[in-house]
Amino acid sequence: MDLYFSPLACSMATRISLYESGGAANFLEVDPKTKQLVGDGSDYRAVYALGMVPALRTDDGLLLTENAAILQYVADRSPDSGLAPAAPAARTQLHRWLCFIGTELHKGLFAPLLSKKTPEAMKAYILANNLSRLAYLDKYLTGREFLLEHFTVADAYLTTVLNWTQAIPAIAMSDYPALAAYLDRQRKRASVAKAISEEATLYRAEMARHQAA
Amino acid sequence: MDLYFSPLACSMATRISLYESGGAANFLEVDPKTKQLVGDGSDYRAVYALGMVPALRTDDGLLLTENAAILQYVADRSPDSGLAPAAPAARTQLHRWLCFIGTELHKGLFAPLLSKKTPEAMKAYILANNLSRLAYLDKYLTGREFLLEHFTVADAYLTTVLNWTQAIPAIAMSDYPALAAYLDRQRKRASVAKAISEEATLYRAEMARHQAA
Repeated sequence: MDLYFSPLACSMATRISLYESGGAANFLEVDPKTKQLVGDGSDYRAVYALGMVPALRTDDGLLLTENAAILQYVADRSPDSGLAPAAPAARTQLHRWLCFIGTELHKGLFAPLLSKKTPEAMKAYILANNLSRLAYLDKYLTGREFLLEHFTVADAYLTTVLNWTQAIPAIAMSDYPALAAYLDRQRKRASVAKAISEEATLYRAEMARHQAA
Repeated sequence: MDLYFSPLACSMATRISLYESGGAANFLEVDPKTKQLVGDGSDYRAVYALGMVPALRTDDGLLLTENAAILQYVADRSPDSGLAPAAPAARTQLHRWLCFIGTELHKGLFAPLLSKKTPEAMKAYILANNLSRLAYLDKYLTGREFLLEHFTVADAYLTTVLNWTQAIPAIAMSDYPALAAYLDRQRKRASVAKAISEEATLYRAEMARHQAA
């Protein structure tokens, strides 16, 4: 398998899940600004026209896109990992959280706040309207260790997204004590710690590359 | 089952899917502005704190939220409907499209353009950056009748979202001929035609209610 990723982007959820499941993959870095593959300078848009990560090339040569699809694909290759429960009721809850994180948090809150290109009026509107999602999640996670009964790909995704708060001063994690404690716990988890450490190094290299350019 | 919905909102995808599968449900209308149940005036936020539709109360009394979860739940109750293929490769593609429609189209493009409260700078930014998703989808649907091999809940969702273009002059469907033809075809499908006709009537009543208030 080949995982196309950018350092600390939402593709990190798949790296975490691969470390959890013991799945092997080649990690191919995409520069999010130039859309070039860092390895050989080729154009990533020739792989996926929209230029978004993650994308996963399976051993059968099929290109998979979209986080919820890739995460469940990786999890279902290792059913014993528990990363995506097979029981229908639990799988429905997994769908719920993958969808909530993808739409309400990632797309509706974090991505626009993270981007330097987002107009200020847009950031202000989003902060005024969408922080309720974090308050809702904070309440849900009070007294819970994970989103489901145990660590799943939804936790890998949520941890990846919450990790971005360090770059968004407008979101004060101290306002969300259960979320803050959840993030602290997950960051200490071996798979997460390894993924963040590796991708933070690559991220710093990416920043240096952009500054030099 | 109880389906909490608002007329012509993304919850219509579940209504279409129920009509496709022959599944029975009570349809409980939520006023998107007041967050009250139209039936008895009670506060919908007591059902789902975030006040978003759809939500589905199962016959076991469990409340399900998030479109991708509800749609797959409804589909999987009627496996013969083909609304959500069970074969792993096809299910992965279903996950892909539900995620793409939910994040890139619904949340990233249509919802902010539909809302009257969205700042103009935000609308301009979104139009400049995210129309590429429609062009991508237009290319994908060229020569295809459905997103997968046959009609699935992803088509119910995509049709519901594309149906909003009639209220977004900034999106010209004539720029996307395959998408426009797809929408035309789906609107003629019995389940879709019935759902749109019923919900359009309720939508006009909703508008009249708001105007009178």
